[in-house]
Amino acid sequence: MKTKVAIIGAGPSGLLLGQLLHKRGIDNVIVERQSAEYVLGRIRAGVLEQGFVDLMHEAGVAGRMDAEGHVHEGFEIVVGERRERINLKELTGGDTVMVYGQTEVTRDLMEERQSNGAPIYYESSHVQLHDLKTESPYVTFEHNGENIKLECDYVAGCDGFHGVSRKSIPADVLKEYERVYPFGWLGMLSDTPPVADELIYAKHERGFALCSQRSATRSRYYVQVPLTDKVEDWSDERFWEELKSRLPKDVANDLVTGPSLEKSIAPLRSFVAEPMQYGRLFLAGDSAHIVPPTGAKGLNLAASDIHTLYSLLQKVYHEGRTDLIDKYSETCLRRIWKAERFSWWMTTMLHKFDGDDIERKLIDAELDYTLGSAAGLTTIAENYVGLPYENLE
Amino acid sequence: MKTKVAIIGAGPSGLLLGQLLHKRGIDNVIVERQSAEYVLGRIRAGVLEQGFVDLMHEAGVAGRMDAEGHVHEGFEIVVGERRERINLKELTGGDTVMVYGQTEVTRDLMEERQSNGAPIYYESSHVQLHDLKTESPYVTFEHNGENIKLECDYVAGCDGFHGVSRKSIPADVLKEYERVYPFGWLGMLSDTPPVADELIYAKHERGFALCSQRSATRSRYYVQVPLTDKVEDWSDERFWEELKSRLPKDVANDLVTGPSLEKSIAPLRSFVAEPMQYGRLFLAGDSAHIVPPTGAKGLNLAASDIHTLYSLLQKVYHEGRTDLIDKYSETCLRRIWKAERFSWWMTTMLHKFDGDDIERKLIDAELDYTLGSAAGLTTIAENYVGLPYENLE
Repeated sequence: MKTKVAIIGAGPSGLLLGQLLHKRGIDNVIVERQSAEYVLGRIRAGVLEQGFVDLMHEAGVAGRMDAEGHVHEGFEIVVGERRERINLKELTGGDTVMVYGQTEVTRDLMEERQSNGAPIYYESSHVQLHDLKTESPYVTFEHNGENIKLECDYVAGCDGFHGVSRKSIPADVLKEYERVYPFGWLGMLSDTPPVADELIYAKHERGFALCSQRSATRSRYYVQVPLTDKVEDWSDERFWEELKSRLPKDVANDLVTGPSLEKSIAPLRSFVAEPMQYGRLFLAGDSAHIVPPTGAKGLNLAASDIHTLYSLLQKVYHEGRTDLIDKYSETCLRRIWKAERFSWWMTTMLHKFDGDDIERKLIDAELDYTLGSAAGLTTIAENYVGLPYENLE
Repeated sequence: MKTKVAIIGAGPSGLLLGQLLHKRGIDNVIVERQSAEYVLGRIRAGVLEQGFVDLMHEAGVAGRMDAEGHVHEGFEIVVGERRERINLKELTGGDTVMVYGQTEVTRDLMEERQSNGAPIYYESSHVQLHDLKTESPYVTFEHNGENIKLECDYVAGCDGFHGVSRKSIPADVLKEYERVYPFGWLGMLSDTPPVADELIYAKHERGFALCSQRSATRSRYYVQVPLTDKVEDWSDERFWEELKSRLPKDVANDLVTGPSLEKSIAPLRSFVAEPMQYGRLFLAGDSAHIVPPTGAKGLNLAASDIHTLYSLLQKVYHEGRTDLIDKYSETCLRRIWKAERFSWWMTTMLHKFDGDDIERKLIDAELDYTLGSAAGLTTIAENYVGLPYENLE
């Protein structure tokens, strides 16, 4: 089997890239280790930057997102009883974010792929990448008991942190940067109306909390927990009580509780692998970098990689510009490190840490200053809506 | 002997407070452990915020500063060969800083004190503070072999980090926050024209450097050095060579070198003591807090304490408002923590640290983002010119 671009991974990054390329007549094949149902079952973030929304339009799959997604013009940061709204639209001169679940994005892209018949191989095992440093790389995998060899021009590694793509780059070529945070997020999904129209990020002496949402009837709440905690330790009642204790009184009073649809604990990690390319393999999204979820940059950062890779492949196939290939990694990394910085900053500002005393006072002062300064608020807003995409040069 | 306010320490803080109170008819006596010559011999910073300049005017001692000081509308941050000007005036809507040496400020205040005959006791030993929690505190000290008892209403502790004032507060009342940085600044004063009209803060892989100045013919340069280094390790030649290696090439080429007038190594420390008051003792300036010199906040922060204390004592003596006394510490600390934050931030951004790899990348990304964003530049500018003074309420 032959194609132009072999895409490893059918999460939103791989599906989005596949669809964008397909629309531009660039053949591609997607290879995914899991089943479609498994991929859809992953509960993830739901705040999309304008850049992501634009890519969904470009890919021609924005219909349901436009109809069902919610444009948010701001969000709140609360510290104890103090409430500060970050007016994204005003502070950035017009930018907003779209609240639409990652699961829905994935579903829309999956259905589009199915309807246009572009090839996608779910439940592929033993995926291996070969000859990446040559002009004729190929991918092998097992599918329905059959061994398949997929020849291609380029490989897009969209298979996440644990995928095979990054591991296919020799260790002595790759430099990995990592920080693991000493706490996790316990998230709960429930069919309850969100407590507020906009998201609320809460800093509290008991720990961080986040009031998020998927729709007008579906809420997603989080509380910071020790990494030693288990989901079984947290009954629905305990979760709601803990959440309320970390919110301003009037917010807690408005909270509508109900049974959980899902509860899970996620660790928080900052991670970047450099470079993001090896011969004809390009890493994109979680395969190359992870951010802690504070600030909702994970999916959006994947989208900016896809934007860069999509631009690059168009230039290759439509303009013959193969000279730009070697710019992929540095182009992506300029924006990635800034988003890593913002996610780390939001995490540091809003969580409870066991730092030394002066460190905690300095962090409190930084948040106090930033929330009290128009310039400071603007730095939060412009990062939250997403810094401009970097261009290949 | 009796007075209204006993001021401990004849550095710029004590002298400025004394002069401000004197002008308003509030009697005060200054007690200083060192000689006038010793105090004048201390080489310190030379960048004054507008708030400081305003206080010098209010004190009626701004003549020479206005004539000889230089108004700076901006400064530069350079990273390797990248040069970014922080346009203070434009970014803050009109604010600037005044370059005028702390030594000159001290000299002007000293001469004014001498000419108006207000009492000042240099070379006082065994200074002790008594009965601070009563309405009749007093200070004892030895001067010219004589034991003196100074009765007063209030005591202003302006005697610096090593002074007796903070030590007079019982340890169980005081909470101290401290960070000592793992490097120092080697400073050199020389009668050479400054390499640029404005200050240049340089981040370089060899370490931080600063091009500062006292006048059109007197320069003050600094390089980051290990704390284990000694001044004797640094010949003038070695200093100039190291400085040049850390500056952009065109700046290094313009550098005029010459013999040093003074060289010294200063450690970098962040320190805050809370609360800043104990009964009728008020701490001001270095006696309560230290910042690393990056960003030149030390003297300016002392001035904002003096501003608060001066306001407070006027309200006490002219309006009988003794109810505000207990607000002193929290009023000062709101602004102090923000300045501590800024000084720590500037230090962290610009120095070479032995942090882990990802920490250094995040710091580089934060500086890269901040210097590339109008909002980010504004946060630097508004802190550098000085955040607004806090009011007693």
